[in-house]
Amino acid sequence: MKLLHTADWHIGRTLNGTSLLDEQKYAFNQILQIAKDEQVDGIVIAGDIYDRAVPSAEAVTALNEMFQQINLENKIPIYAISGNHDSAQRLNYGRDWMEFTNFHLNTLLEEAFTPIETDDVQIFMLPFFDPLDARVYYGHHGMDEEEAQQITSIGTAMNYVISDMVKLFAPNKKHLLITHFAVTADGQDDPNLTSETASKVGGLATLTASQFSDFDYVMLGHIHTRFASPSETVRYSGSPVKFNVKEARLKNKGKGVDIVTINDSTISHEYRALTPQTDLVVLEEDWDTLCDPDFYQNQPAKKDWFAITIKNFERSEHVQTNVRAELQKRYGTIIELDYQLDQAELETQNITTNINEVSPEETVNQFFHSITGKDLSPQQNTLVENIFNEVEREHK
Amino acid sequence: MKLLHTADWHIGRTLNGTSLLDEQKYAFNQILQIAKDEQVDGIVIAGDIYDRAVPSAEAVTALNEMFQQINLENKIPIYAISGNHDSAQRLNYGRDWMEFTNFHLNTLLEEAFTPIETDDVQIFMLPFFDPLDARVYYGHHGMDEEEAQQITSIGTAMNYVISDMVKLFAPNKKHLLITHFAVTADGQDDPNLTSETASKVGGLATLTASQFSDFDYVMLGHIHTRFASPSETVRYSGSPVKFNVKEARLKNKGKGVDIVTINDSTISHEYRALTPQTDLVVLEEDWDTLCDPDFYQNQPAKKDWFAITIKNFERSEHVQTNVRAELQKRYGTIIELDYQLDQAELETQNITTNINEVSPEETVNQFFHSITGKDLSPQQNTLVENIFNEVEREHK
Repeated sequence: MKLLHTADWHIGRTLNGTSLLDEQKYAFNQILQIAKDEQVDGIVIAGDIYDRAVPSAEAVTALNEMFQQINLENKIPIYAISGNHDSAQRLNYGRDWMEFTNFHLNTLLEEAFTPIETDDVQIFMLPFFDPLDARVYYGHHGMDEEEAQQITSIGTAMNYVISDMVKLFAPNKKHLLITHFAVTADGQDDPNLTSETASKVGGLATLTASQFSDFDYVMLGHIHTRFASPSETVRYSGSPVKFNVKEARLKNKGKGVDIVTINDSTISHEYRALTPQTDLVVLEEDWDTLCDPDFYQNQPAKKDWFAITIKNFERSEHVQTNVRAELQKRYGTIIELDYQLDQAELETQNITTNINEVSPEETVNQFFHSITGKDLSPQQNTLVENIFNEVEREHK
Repeated sequence: MKLLHTADWHIGRTLNGTSLLDEQKYAFNQILQIAKDEQVDGIVIAGDIYDRAVPSAEAVTALNEMFQQINLENKIPIYAISGNHDSAQRLNYGRDWMEFTNFHLNTLLEEAFTPIETDDVQIFMLPFFDPLDARVYYGHHGMDEEEAQQITSIGTAMNYVISDMVKLFAPNKKHLLITHFAVTADGQDDPNLTSETASKVGGLATLTASQFSDFDYVMLGHIHTRFASPSETVRYSGSPVKFNVKEARLKNKGKGVDIVTINDSTISHEYRALTPQTDLVVLEEDWDTLCDPDFYQNQPAKKDWFAITIKNFERSEHVQTNVRAELQKRYGTIIELDYQLDQAELETQNITTNINEVSPEETVNQFFHSITGKDLSPQQNTLVENIFNEVEREHK
């Protein structure tokens, strides 16, 4: 059996106000082509299919078209789960009809206990859930009330869930899991994120790879880079598209999908890169360098998006300059423009940002940076994203 | 062939802030039972399936469950179109999969030109559209640009559309149309609504039954009462549920569905009544009568909703009375409370209404009533509803 593993499509996402839909469609076409070339037996989408609980009509149309191409035109099965960004109820619409063509979609915790069976493989599909969902589920499934009420962290909840899945294991088959959580390598928990803090926001960061060791292979969504994979068999595919400037700053920033091949004896994964249509280029230079033809003529094409930080910027010298316009002439689309002020200026000035142009997550990050001089760690970022996501999520 | 004709479900609608979902589910169960008892060959839903372009998650879940029960559990085909309240794009999601089980859903004008064919019948499904949609469609389908630009009223647009459908008529079959517009009997146009006014808001009121005379039978949605049907063969089924107090005031207010039977020679329709779970009762009485046990003990059960207008109300006499609470004790749920003031009081006081408790349409109606002393006519109501609907509709 051969599966294509992808996740975190976040259809409908914007980057500083710019729609990423064309970019997402461009990546999708490559994913579909890879699936066809590799003749996979299914495409796994490990959650966060949409970017928000109530996606735009445009996002709904785009996703429907993608699913249609995979599942109806090319007859490729889909194994999808909802992530923390998706509305389980909304994503549910129509799925009973989709099941007829091997389009499998799970949005509820209890659905994890009905694995998809092939001759050799059991595929468990566990959508994102929070400790409250687990308390409700176990409260209705024979656990005594007091015990159920003690499921307050995702770590505890996951142990119950996994142990119930393990009971369903067919002994002669491989056991795969598709799920959507932050999972760290053992002992590599972010020290800033104690389990107490974590449990308050759904306990996301308390899951470790060893909890999943009963499974032969785990296909994860939630963290947007495959380099965050906690082990050889518990893996993130990463998102198909770069979603923010911070991602573009990373050393390991390539985007792609995994081809997961399941044989009698082994399960292997192989990376397939995706090429962006419009790349996101980060520049941090002095004004003079940025305006130097020798520099800017050697940059990527104007069709790309540029996130530019002007170093040692002295405002007094540029009062008459329309800085953004000057840079646009040379670079094309400036998706983000930042100033790294002179130390002297820093001490006398407040940096003003147009708050409408940055996401709430980015606002927190900028605040954190201005106080500590450091960016948020990936785990802290997850925490912040999750909080805003909870705020945005519809009341269940 | 036997079809059940219903329309204007408006799933997710509220009445003065109270959800109608339970009421809608109660009506749905009766519709399903009638369909099973009559062994119909399909259920026609002639538009306005949801109440708004972006329905709540609860509404999405409820509708999915209803469709599932009709089409998957009971294997009854569905013939549905979008109305002016639905978002064509959102409703589109998943429909390619639904088509496999004879769940037919049209949301675009061009889809009207691919009728569903049986041995004896052609069913044309024409969703709600506006003159702009028609201009775009004909602009892309060989009409010369100048001619296309002259399609500015729905009357003109409909003539083109019907003439193109007629070209597709198979001579030995019956020709049915499902659509969603305000259609009046010939010569009975609302004199207040000239075609000029009408075309400005989509020309809704300019359609007359004679335009549809090529069809053997037309199943309409849009107007919520079957008594508005413009002819014996061009018919509204009405909505399954009363949506506002004005409807409850009508003499002819029964809700139901039609069973449409198509034979070689004739097409007949037969009304099947639906019973409300919670009825909407309108009372207009003096305070003393309302408080008289002989009166209120003879009213419908407390589980019903009451819309009460207190006649000849003299505020000065009731300064110490919590009027709403007193009435609730006697009647149960008061869904609407109005005061018909003494003429003397009327002249000195302004009626204050909590604007958050009434819909925009109702606000216009109240204003109209306070100025003219009359309610809006059904056509004027349609006009007002349509304007607010346009305002709410997503940008295409």
